[in-house]
Amino acid sequence: MKLSKKDKVLIVGLGLIGGSYAKGLKNEGFYVGAVSINPDDISYALDNSIIDSGTTFLDENYIKQFDVVIFALYPTTLVNWIKEHQHLLKKKAKLTDVTGVKSSIIYEIQNILRKDLTFIGAHPMAGKETSGVRNSDPSIFINANYIITPTDKNDIKDVEFAKNIGELLHFKNIVALTPKKHDEMIAFLSQLTHCIAICLMTNQNCEHFSLFSGDSFRDLTRIAKINENMWPELFLMNKEKLLYEMDLFIKEMEKLKGYIINDNKEEIKQMMITSTERRKIFDKWFEGNSLWTWYLKESFRFLKM
Amino acid sequence: MKLSKKDKVLIVGLGLIGGSYAKGLKNEGFYVGAVSINPDDISYALDNSIIDSGTTFLDENYIKQFDVVIFALYPTTLVNWIKEHQHLLKKKAKLTDVTGVKSSIIYEIQNILRKDLTFIGAHPMAGKETSGVRNSDPSIFINANYIITPTDKNDIKDVEFAKNIGELLHFKNIVALTPKKHDEMIAFLSQLTHCIAICLMTNQNCEHFSLFSGDSFRDLTRIAKINENMWPELFLMNKEKLLYEMDLFIKEMEKLKGYIINDNKEEIKQMMITSTERRKIFDKWFEGNSLWTWYLKESFRFLKM
Repeated sequence: MKLSKKDKVLIVGLGLIGGSYAKGLKNEGFYVGAVSINPDDISYALDNSIIDSGTTFLDENYIKQFDVVIFALYPTTLVNWIKEHQHLLKKKAKLTDVTGVKSSIIYEIQNILRKDLTFIGAHPMAGKETSGVRNSDPSIFINANYIITPTDKNDIKDVEFAKNIGELLHFKNIVALTPKKHDEMIAFLSQLTHCIAICLMTNQNCEHFSLFSGDSFRDLTRIAKINENMWPELFLMNKEKLLYEMDLFIKEMEKLKGYIINDNKEEIKQMMITSTERRKIFDKWFEGNSLWTWYLKESFRFLKM
Repeated sequence: MKLSKKDKVLIVGLGLIGGSYAKGLKNEGFYVGAVSINPDDISYALDNSIIDSGTTFLDENYIKQFDVVIFALYPTTLVNWIKEHQHLLKKKAKLTDVTGVKSSIIYEIQNILRKDLTFIGAHPMAGKETSGVRNSDPSIFINANYIITPTDKNDIKDVEFAKNIGELLHFKNIVALTPKKHDEMIAFLSQLTHCIAICLMTNQNCEHFSLFSGDSFRDLTRIAKINENMWPELFLMNKEKLLYEMDLFIKEMEKLKGYIINDNKEEIKQMMITSTERRKIFDKWFEGNSLWTWYLKESFRFLKM
């Protein structure tokens, strides 16, 4: 189901991602409102045409006008918001989110949700090393991936709705995964990589090594500038899967260490051949056509829908 | 000591870095020759104005004309070349290199070197995920670091000579470190990061994860496309220091794992605050003025010169 240009969109939480969604959808001609606890963020967003209207008050008359609600909150805040304030939402409103973990929130939300509302999870795989609405920029979505996470509480219309938001924001690839698969992917692709970047910066005093480094260290630690209020929550809410990925990675590093200790040049070379081949295929997948349909079918098969 | 425009420059080894040096110095108006074992590389470089002349034969009459010789060979090949062919070099020729490890080759070279020749080590901290002269491009040096590694066999004139090459190739920061300090730095900043990138690609089948990844995984694995003929040699020739860095990093990952296991949100947050602060300072150092003079002084102090 595609959004109609008459649909009014509410962004709940006006940070980097909320602000980028707002501006991107406003650019596409939608009326965009916002709710934030921070009056400065609302003023800034109004002054810079990121939103059409906004408030810090959870006013029923204001919120009731919105057909589509996009939650851009920290995970625990999102669940609490639904619990406490879902009575304010318009009848039959369509809800989605941008949260970085899924299993630990999505079933809980769908279980407590009013029967007339629909909620479908989505996760834009894009960001910046800065936070806040002042750094928002919808161009971060161009060339990025967007993952929809349907459950057995969702139908194909919900998925089409989430897909349409991804299209309106110009994501490169739009795919669907179960919440479980999403969390496994994210533990490896996003959370583990952030752990690595952090540990590269914290394991020794290396601030001034900048004069000796090549691009590699610079690239690997770019994401070491991290929002310390949001990420611990994301790590802990996906704890089991992240720990599994950390162990797998450390085991691989230990394997390589063993080859180096034993001067096993041939095995080191083989690992490099494998990593080179895989990274080349990785690039090709990303550059290829979106495999959305295939992935969606796979997800639904997985969900037995 | 600056190069004179009358100095003829010979590049020994015409791969990605050798080719990039050749083109960069030719652009600056120098006569540039090349020696390579591969006739195709010489033809390509001649056809594309990367060199003025070149040969696959170690012909004394050809080699004797060059005042400056830059070795762009794999580390073991470099040492053997000096051993077997240094008699071909012009009297009082000035030699330098681009090798990624220093302690394990530089003292050996300086010990066997003809008394009239001078050799000073240097390491351009730049590269690409492709190899060969066909991918050479001197613009990779702009915005990159260049490390000179003097020993007690070198004097200030040698350092000035290496510095001048760095300037002619438009490196951003030119610094000097002892071979030992260089190898410690490189173990951490370059070799460890390549180990991490390799292990991220080899620890599981992840070629098709490209559709789910954000920039972070893409950035952290860019260097997983690696020259499998050169890098095992670099790892093994700097083995002790690389293993030390791998251990330090794995220990830090284990520490973070412990915090996650114990839901220690506050300690995770503290690590993120540290990593963010350090990465910000790291950026500032790189963007600041070159601290070459200071580092040079430090190196010489260290060398007791």
